[in-house]
Amino acid sequence: MTTRNPVPILAIHGGAGTLLRSAMSAEQAAQYEAALHAVLQSGEALLASGASALDVVTEAVRQLEECPLFNAGKGAVYTADATHELDACVMDGRDLAAGAVAGVSRVRNPVRAARALLETSRRDAGPVMLIGPPAEAFAAAQGLESVAPDWYGTEARYQQLLKARQKLAQGGGGGQALLDHDGAALQAASGPLDDETKFGTVGAVALDAQGHLAAATSTGGMTNKRPGRVGDSPLIGAGCYANDATVAVSCTGSGEMFMRAVTAYDVSALMEYAGLSLADATRKVVMDKLPRIDGRGGLIAVSRDGEVSLAFNTEGMYRGSVRAGEAPVVAIYAEGGA
Amino acid sequence: MTTRNPVPILAIHGGAGTLLRSAMSAEQAAQYEAALHAVLQSGEALLASGASALDVVTEAVRQLEECPLFNAGKGAVYTADATHELDACVMDGRDLAAGAVAGVSRVRNPVRAARALLETSRRDAGPVMLIGPPAEAFAAAQGLESVAPDWYGTEARYQQLLKARQKLAQGGGGGQALLDHDGAALQAASGPLDDETKFGTVGAVALDAQGHLAAATSTGGMTNKRPGRVGDSPLIGAGCYANDATVAVSCTGSGEMFMRAVTAYDVSALMEYAGLSLADATRKVVMDKLPRIDGRGGLIAVSRDGEVSLAFNTEGMYRGSVRAGEAPVVAIYAEGGA
Repeated sequence: MTTRNPVPILAIHGGAGTLLRSAMSAEQAAQYEAALHAVLQSGEALLASGASALDVVTEAVRQLEECPLFNAGKGAVYTADATHELDACVMDGRDLAAGAVAGVSRVRNPVRAARALLETSRRDAGPVMLIGPPAEAFAAAQGLESVAPDWYGTEARYQQLLKARQKLAQGGGGGQALLDHDGAALQAASGPLDDETKFGTVGAVALDAQGHLAAATSTGGMTNKRPGRVGDSPLIGAGCYANDATVAVSCTGSGEMFMRAVTAYDVSALMEYAGLSLADATRKVVMDKLPRIDGRGGLIAVSRDGEVSLAFNTEGMYRGSVRAGEAPVVAIYAEGGA
Repeated sequence: MTTRNPVPILAIHGGAGTLLRSAMSAEQAAQYEAALHAVLQSGEALLASGASALDVVTEAVRQLEECPLFNAGKGAVYTADATHELDACVMDGRDLAAGAVAGVSRVRNPVRAARALLETSRRDAGPVMLIGPPAEAFAAAQGLESVAPDWYGTEARYQQLLKARQKLAQGGGGGQALLDHDGAALQAASGPLDDETKFGTVGAVALDAQGHLAAATSTGGMTNKRPGRVGDSPLIGAGCYANDATVAVSCTGSGEMFMRAVTAYDVSALMEYAGLSLADATRKVVMDKLPRIDGRGGLIAVSRDGEVSLAFNTEGMYRGSVRAGEAPVVAIYAEGGA
């Protein structure tokens, strides 16, 4: 199964969730597809020019962070305190080097802070993971752009926070009544996947021409989340993992369950130790192991042989992939349609 | 290999590292052994009375946190800013429920905060992991004791910080000269394992009479560490893991490498997917996989069948185990002596 000169490939995701039944969804779907397409096209150019998988996933996630449609960087959701707290992780399959930040509120691109930690930890045996203000200070010292804590916010995300608060005040179950009364402003606050229930994360996995794998994941967390909450996204082996011997994985979903299931590394372990194919390993993890603990969401994965898997147990996942020299393929819904 | 009515067992560790060549080490060793013995004796009484593995590991780690000899809770090391930042994780093998805190500075017993998160996340589908001040606020709201940020400090740990700073100022390699000039005060700052190079963590793993497994890990981090640094201790699958189907594991070592290797879950995966025995799985992880990425330290593990493994690739590890109805066995050095 080993490919000596694999065709480079990049896969990305922008979160998984349930479909929003709305007249606007076709129009909105096109917007999301265009955004995914643009990131993949840019990544394809990098891969074709010989860029490393590590550089390609870092740049793809940086672009997803910059896009306000996705819950990472600009467009990150609000915490219960109407603040933003972002997490990110990057891993290099060559030597298992990694970097991660959690709870940052002033770093324009958390994935670049994670990448800088990967580099400094590799060079100086320094920390792999930093949290909170020290992570922000590290990023600034590395020359990365700092932003004001309100930079990430958008009107759409703020409306989502207000809705989430209103729902809670009505006792949690009152969501449907609220949806029925939605005006255009609130509708516009969501994409074709219901942002109120969507697991908002972005991620990228890539295999480069040298056969190296890399993965990156970034998130703004959950709308109305308790400040200080950390999910799977910045945790090596939970929301992000890469190993040249097996696979690169980036997850999106109910973070607590992905942490408890050590989901990203589990895909690798099933391939390495149990001899499962990429497809079987991701199916087992997403369709069997996660549901057993009520884990909902999905993951993207690229194997050392260049196979790709975009697996999810929700109604949809913003996703796409591209091979060097080919055109991107993007999808939102379960059947690969739209 | 399945035992229907296993004999309950508890294993604990207090960190791994290199031996300190010192005239005082025999006397100090006795002190550390007595501390480990007391924790095991208390745990044995709990196990014999039918306590759950989860309760036993939480209480064992709480006692290790209270003991100033070990780097967790009271006696935690100082960061580069002469502050304390503590991390802890607890996991229940019954249902993979878990709780974790990182970067807390006001919670007397971080393991109890982690345990409270385990309970609330199981009950309310709340966060599994909280960091920083919100984790402290959560613990206080749960009725757990808060302390002033300087409560954890001891004179011995402060001397270690001063030594670490002095070494750094001398260019890192100047450690030996410093050691040669040590006075009694500085000697007393270390145990028989050299505290300057020791990986300071405490942990417990247990199997109870119902066949359930649990694991807990707690740490004060590394002396002179960059504030905000998080190691493997509070990360599910890295420094702590428990699964009734396989094993409970608590790690101590160079945290960055344990994170990258997803060490605790790796032991479980090797047993479940590759069919390795507990001894073979821990040997592979500690003696083969970790050294490949310069990972130093060790782990304690108890399998579903009641086997125990206390494995390390350093000169020593503070460790011990006890079966219900038997006397504790403790050790520090590699040959199980002292």
